[in-house]
Amino acid sequence: MGDPSGIGAEVIVKALADPDRRSRARYIIFGLHEMLSYAADQAEINPYWFRMPHEEIDAVRSGVVVADFDDLTTPGAGIRQPTAEGGAASLRFLDEAIAAHKAKRLDAIVTGPIHKISWQMAGVKSPGHTEYLAEAYRSRRVTMAFAGGRMRVALASTHVGLFDLRNSFTIGRVFQPIDLLDDWLRRYWNIETPRIAVCGLNPHAGEEGRFGDEETRIIEPAMVMAGEVGIHVEGPFPADTLFVKAAQGQFDGVVAMYHDQGLIPIKLLHFDSSVNVTLGLPVIRTSVDHGTAFDISGRNLANPGSMAHAIDLAVKLASAPVAPPLERRPAGRAVLEEPNHQDTKTPRTA
Amino acid sequence: MGDPSGIGAEVIVKALADPDRRSRARYIIFGLHEMLSYAADQAEINPYWFRMPHEEIDAVRSGVVVADFDDLTTPGAGIRQPTAEGGAASLRFLDEAIAAHKAKRLDAIVTGPIHKISWQMAGVKSPGHTEYLAEAYRSRRVTMAFAGGRMRVALASTHVGLFDLRNSFTIGRVFQPIDLLDDWLRRYWNIETPRIAVCGLNPHAGEEGRFGDEETRIIEPAMVMAGEVGIHVEGPFPADTLFVKAAQGQFDGVVAMYHDQGLIPIKLLHFDSSVNVTLGLPVIRTSVDHGTAFDISGRNLANPGSMAHAIDLAVKLASAPVAPPLERRPAGRAVLEEPNHQDTKTPRTA
Repeated sequence: MGDPSGIGAEVIVKALADPDRRSRARYIIFGLHEMLSYAADQAEINPYWFRMPHEEIDAVRSGVVVADFDDLTTPGAGIRQPTAEGGAASLRFLDEAIAAHKAKRLDAIVTGPIHKISWQMAGVKSPGHTEYLAEAYRSRRVTMAFAGGRMRVALASTHVGLFDLRNSFTIGRVFQPIDLLDDWLRRYWNIETPRIAVCGLNPHAGEEGRFGDEETRIIEPAMVMAGEVGIHVEGPFPADTLFVKAAQGQFDGVVAMYHDQGLIPIKLLHFDSSVNVTLGLPVIRTSVDHGTAFDISGRNLANPGSMAHAIDLAVKLASAPVAPPLERRPAGRAVLEEPNHQDTKTPRTA
Repeated sequence: MGDPSGIGAEVIVKALADPDRRSRARYIIFGLHEMLSYAADQAEINPYWFRMPHEEIDAVRSGVVVADFDDLTTPGAGIRQPTAEGGAASLRFLDEAIAAHKAKRLDAIVTGPIHKISWQMAGVKSPGHTEYLAEAYRSRRVTMAFAGGRMRVALASTHVGLFDLRNSFTIGRVFQPIDLLDDWLRRYWNIETPRIAVCGLNPHAGEEGRFGDEETRIIEPAMVMAGEVGIHVEGPFPADTLFVKAAQGQFDGVVAMYHDQGLIPIKLLHFDSSVNVTLGLPVIRTSVDHGTAFDISGRNLANPGSMAHAIDLAVKLASAPVAPPLERRPAGRAVLEEPNHQDTKTPRTA
């Protein structure tokens, strides 16, 4: 449910109000029954869940169950700011969801919006869900990715200053999202040989080394490595034209080098429907793509679109016939582009 | 006309084949009559121009005139690669267009696609049109900008390696595109107080200094400077959500910090219609947004969309009631954002 002072309860209640969505899976909401009821009341939605004290949750047989943490001290609905109690509560919800997954009572975890400051106030070391989950599952390699429309984008770096990135921009850093994205597309999307496109770091992908050499020094070696382990990978492409092709469905996935490079196109095309996914965890994990929105919390103004899409993607992935991780992939290839900006955009008659 | 071995002749012939477009202005094509005729022949377009030897061009009274450089040695149409002759020819066309503008025979220059390697082979020092024009007009402050749909985006940096940019990322570098974009929007777009939004450099615009301090150290001081000279400027905003708002028309212009940040959104939304504009020159200059496309040159396959839009924008700007540069602008203000990623995207019900 995320931070109790945020819009988490409201977007969950609204998203699961759709009977179709409820029919496609069974759900446990780790959160506060009182807040959920309040949100339902405001939105004039009839409660459609069973409340159970969280310590009694065992197997969920059908429908929607609220694992209620009424023993927690939490700020009221009107407190529209980060609090230590809010941080501690959202962490408890997450911890119990992880425990339920480890006990095989869950197939996927969808996370609601938390507030980083609340977590800091509650003494949590991890800056966010992704890092916390990586630690909880001892996953050393996780990658943030986004799915929206026909685009699936994995990031080689996330929350780091753009110029600081140069200190940690390594071949391994670029190889990892290629590898995890390929694995994900094969196993969960049932794509036999995913076509993965890789962005350059520099304008025009460096234009043959004229504007930065990271393409030849780092990105291309990472692509060659990927080709050697059976991944079909193409690039590095100038990012500005690559996303035009990706939006048309020319690739199964794209690896972006840094946050804005991947997030600008996905938000521009799929602002209300893009879903944040963590690759590399032993659990399916999707997330809303927005924050706690304290400014509109408790006012029945929140749009549940992102939560609805995060739930739908988690259900889709959990229902996919999942192949085991491949020991050896069939031969792949790295198609290295000769960057040639002048002809990058070849205009043809339609 | 650009490089004679490229698609310049073809896209010009096709773009000006529209009688409506021809009726809105008078045109001089600096190029090769033979190539233009060949392109028209292939496209089954009846020639609609008068040929004149370039040295006889004086005032153009109506319609379309080809200033023919039949004295130039140029490679034939079949040569689909950079050549010194191609570079020298495209430079001659440009030089005479500049001279014609300085002699007040032209209001605007639209440039066709050149090839940087051809220019290098011909011994040209400037890497491209923009730099060459800046030198020819002794304009010390020029900025590359793009117009497409409702977006007008000016860049604080262009063809420099992303990580190298840190060595030249200064307050002046950010102030200049704000200033020139504001001036352009006031003078040519008749917007009394343009609303200019500024992108952050880092993910989430640095999130209060957590991921890089360039927002507080460089971008905000540049915005304060802009506010002091009467410019209305807002930001720095996280770039991934800013462009969603810009595409909806919430701002009159956007300043992006680096090439891909500005080009990814404009190409994604307006691939076939975005136009490259140079701000800061004493001449209106627009340009096609693509290269020479040697691979399809001479085969009647080129799409004239970009050239058509570049011509149309040049005509529009040249027809605008241009105010003189302002000595003093009315009071503006810099609205500095408190970056707060968690609430950046506030989902509301539609």
